[in-house]
Amino acid sequence: MSDQSSQSNLSSQSKQGFAGHNFIGGQRSAEGSVVLYSRAAASGDALPMPFYQATVAEVDAACHAAAAAFTTFRSMPASQRADFLCAIADELDALGTDFVELVQQETALPAARIMGERGRTSGQMRLFAEVLKRGDFYGARIDLALPDRQPLPRVDLRQCRLGVGPVAVFGASNFPLAFSTAGGDTASALAAGCPVVFKAHSGHMGTAEKVAEAIVRAAEKTAMPAGVFNMVFGSGVGEALVKHPAIQAVGFTGSLHGGRALCDMAAARPQPIPVFAEMSSINPVILMPQALSVRGEKIASELTASVVLGAGQFCTNPGLVLGIRSAEFSAFVDQLTARMADQPVQCMLNSGVLSSYRKGCAVLRQHSGITPLAGEEAPDRCAQPQLFKADVSMLLQGDALLQEEIFGPATIVVEVADHAQLLACLQALHGQLTATLIGEADELAGAADLMTILEQKAGRVLINGYPTGVEVSDAMVHGGPYPATSDARGTSVGTLAIDRFLRPVCYQNCPDALLPAALQNANPLGISRLVNGEQSRRALP
Amino acid sequence: MSDQSSQSNLSSQSKQGFAGHNFIGGQRSAEGSVVLYSRAAASGDALPMPFYQATVAEVDAACHAAAAAFTTFRSMPASQRADFLCAIADELDALGTDFVELVQQETALPAARIMGERGRTSGQMRLFAEVLKRGDFYGARIDLALPDRQPLPRVDLRQCRLGVGPVAVFGASNFPLAFSTAGGDTASALAAGCPVVFKAHSGHMGTAEKVAEAIVRAAEKTAMPAGVFNMVFGSGVGEALVKHPAIQAVGFTGSLHGGRALCDMAAARPQPIPVFAEMSSINPVILMPQALSVRGEKIASELTASVVLGAGQFCTNPGLVLGIRSAEFSAFVDQLTARMADQPVQCMLNSGVLSSYRKGCAVLRQHSGITPLAGEEAPDRCAQPQLFKADVSMLLQGDALLQEEIFGPATIVVEVADHAQLLACLQALHGQLTATLIGEADELAGAADLMTILEQKAGRVLINGYPTGVEVSDAMVHGGPYPATSDARGTSVGTLAIDRFLRPVCYQNCPDALLPAALQNANPLGISRLVNGEQSRRALP
Repeated sequence: MSDQSSQSNLSSQSKQGFAGHNFIGGQRSAEGSVVLYSRAAASGDALPMPFYQATVAEVDAACHAAAAAFTTFRSMPASQRADFLCAIADELDALGTDFVELVQQETALPAARIMGERGRTSGQMRLFAEVLKRGDFYGARIDLALPDRQPLPRVDLRQCRLGVGPVAVFGASNFPLAFSTAGGDTASALAAGCPVVFKAHSGHMGTAEKVAEAIVRAAEKTAMPAGVFNMVFGSGVGEALVKHPAIQAVGFTGSLHGGRALCDMAAARPQPIPVFAEMSSINPVILMPQALSVRGEKIASELTASVVLGAGQFCTNPGLVLGIRSAEFSAFVDQLTARMADQPVQCMLNSGVLSSYRKGCAVLRQHSGITPLAGEEAPDRCAQPQLFKADVSMLLQGDALLQEEIFGPATIVVEVADHAQLLACLQALHGQLTATLIGEADELAGAADLMTILEQKAGRVLINGYPTGVEVSDAMVHGGPYPATSDARGTSVGTLAIDRFLRPVCYQNCPDALLPAALQNANPLGISRLVNGEQSRRALP
Repeated sequence: MSDQSSQSNLSSQSKQGFAGHNFIGGQRSAEGSVVLYSRAAASGDALPMPFYQATVAEVDAACHAAAAAFTTFRSMPASQRADFLCAIADELDALGTDFVELVQQETALPAARIMGERGRTSGQMRLFAEVLKRGDFYGARIDLALPDRQPLPRVDLRQCRLGVGPVAVFGASNFPLAFSTAGGDTASALAAGCPVVFKAHSGHMGTAEKVAEAIVRAAEKTAMPAGVFNMVFGSGVGEALVKHPAIQAVGFTGSLHGGRALCDMAAARPQPIPVFAEMSSINPVILMPQALSVRGEKIASELTASVVLGAGQFCTNPGLVLGIRSAEFSAFVDQLTARMADQPVQCMLNSGVLSSYRKGCAVLRQHSGITPLAGEEAPDRCAQPQLFKADVSMLLQGDALLQEEIFGPATIVVEVADHAQLLACLQALHGQLTATLIGEADELAGAADLMTILEQKAGRVLINGYPTGVEVSDAMVHGGPYPATSDARGTSVGTLAIDRFLRPVCYQNCPDALLPAALQNANPLGISRLVNGEQSRRALP
């Protein structure tokens, strides 16, 4: 995909903002000789727009631009950052039907989904603007001086949280908007006062460019420093980005292999930095007997819809279904099989995703402990929903095959002998984004033992729901123990995501005028603060 | 230090709780053949008590005991954990003069310091008990269902934070109580609901044993699960501990070399885990011209006291003093030189610390850019306070020598040409636990540019104070960018330390009875919760 002849053309154009140029400090730049093309998801054909892979010097320039912007950006009033986020939201909402068509072309996602995802993306920008106004992200704490305390006086101590520095963000293939250029990682990093260097996903570079342009317009309209947002193209640039000394944290959504590689690089830096990688989850769904008895057919229908939604291309796609051996469970498996066999083929995001899906299903098909129940390999560029049944011994013995996410519209049913074996199977699972319990009120009342395991295994525990569909709100956790994410203490969806990019600073005996506004006596921001151990909005004398 | 003959004796004694046995799941165990002895800090002579290095199997048993305790400990009411912490505090306070004498013998610290440190240690246990009662550590958030929302309804979502799992804690040499067996890492991990496996520091194993016994007595009195606290002896056990699959986080206070090694091990695990290592800081002190003019002699006296306090064996010891070239600064350096030259020799914690201090000073002495101003090498087992002056070019060129902590009563003065050069020097510094600005009101009013750099470099910024002496409170941050710590988002002193060992979990559409008490409708804990974006203590219908 390299095109040597482009370089000479570029030298005269590189300042003029042509399509496919990298976004560096408010300028466009295309100094490299490697040219990439997006592909039409439906046909696999290369699209005509060229994208210029960032050179090492361009990655360096993008990181330096972010670092230069940090000093201004971090210390501006949070309300100004909120205005910037709202301006981004407005720019996103104003993108026209040609934009929706471009995203469709690059991802094969239906227009309604793209419109919905756009609304979610601009909505989360506005939600983070609310967080900035609410002010609890500061974590403001004030311990007033106690000059007469015995045996030693206490000096005035005040704490609040500041942005960690420039953040590198790697976009996801499966959410070209909500987990990409202007997605949750970017939104939470910007909210925290951290400039972003975004690495565009090779699967939707045109989409990334349009969104990046929207962000840059918003930055200009709200007078942000030029390097507040930067974007580089290219598949070889991630390593240089993560290893750059200016980068202070990383956000990533993608495969376990890719995420772990970034974690290892970040940990090996002279100055190690945190990586928040959202990676691999099989999202177990546990079906309790009474629920199957009362509404087994409905569950089969709902579960099928969750498995095949968006061609199964969700981090929270239910990949493992557990039930206790019974006539009801057998009937349920038959119903699920029938429904899964009825599902049409679907076009996937790109040929890489499709090929991984097919390989994953083929490996299952060949395993002696696994029985295919529904779905065959589909022809051409399509994915056929597939259902498998695995022997419980595979789970109990920790077979890696059942712990690995198959990205696509497939799921695996496991029948356990009894409640004790169910608990043992859940204990054997690795960390998950979600775990779901489907049961009637009576049986749920006795399910405390299940909850105890599930809340240790997952970032989100659902009762009588399906894990696909992640609300963007204060209480959401889209995270979980490894390998669901690299750090169970974070979430990449919801307002708590901002915490990943903040660090506390304490000011001791500091004159009021030198304190951040969040900590000043008058409480000019009107925020709630922990003063001498009690939450209070009052001004201090 | 190995004693093969002890093994046969041990087999009959290992259940009887003899001194020097490892603490595993409420029992004592000494299955190993390597016997260690503490040394008297003043003489370097081995003390008579034998300590039995934990075998690999014993480390494994300790981790499994912690894991077994976790299920009970994590889910008990926080008020019960608070009772446990208070019981530990009471047991510590009840330790008699023989305990103080033992600590003195092992560390050469004066009795008054040990009594003070014990008060701090029991005080921080009680402070974490208050945190557990206050309940903000839960981070409770509730987004109520919005069944009529368009285009999609919102389901009930509730979030709170749970302990991450068993924590391995490595004690520090320099705080045998406050940063050791029952120190801040242990206190915050236990508060978070995480059982602890503590690795006793080889410098004060007798002290560690007495404190561990106190914790075990408290655990028994408050009916905690047996594995809630475990302690292993031995210098070779750290790796097995950090690599153990049951361990979910690590707390460490010590050298950059040791801390980084643990970080690297933790990052390379099949399941990487977070390490909170507090390592190396030189704690710059910036002296502004007017302050030197008004009270230079007083500052020289106070700074000297801070440098030599406790033989300089503090993480926050001021190791770098910066001032702008002037008659006042020259006079100050003369005063500081005179005072430092006047300081008596001091006994250090152990021969390793003394030897490192001497080596560090010798390297400075040999560097062409450094001029010794006060202090010679002391005879025998003592440390002589020392003062050096370094050429500013060493800082500007990033010479590693000026970035490295010399643990002991030494400090380095650097004279800068002007304010611009001062800013450049501060920019060249690595991450710090503290940074201190000493100035008069007028000059501080114009010091916003200095503050901007200092708050990016350090976890705590002090005005007109000295960094030694770390208050244990809500607003304290004892942390900072690398290499001060391995993760600037944490603190190892103060109540925010609990956050390191918690992770958020979201409950979606969960029946009230299955929710943690912190999230139940009735708000039985009476805590403040973020309900639909607003803090509230009200019960929900």
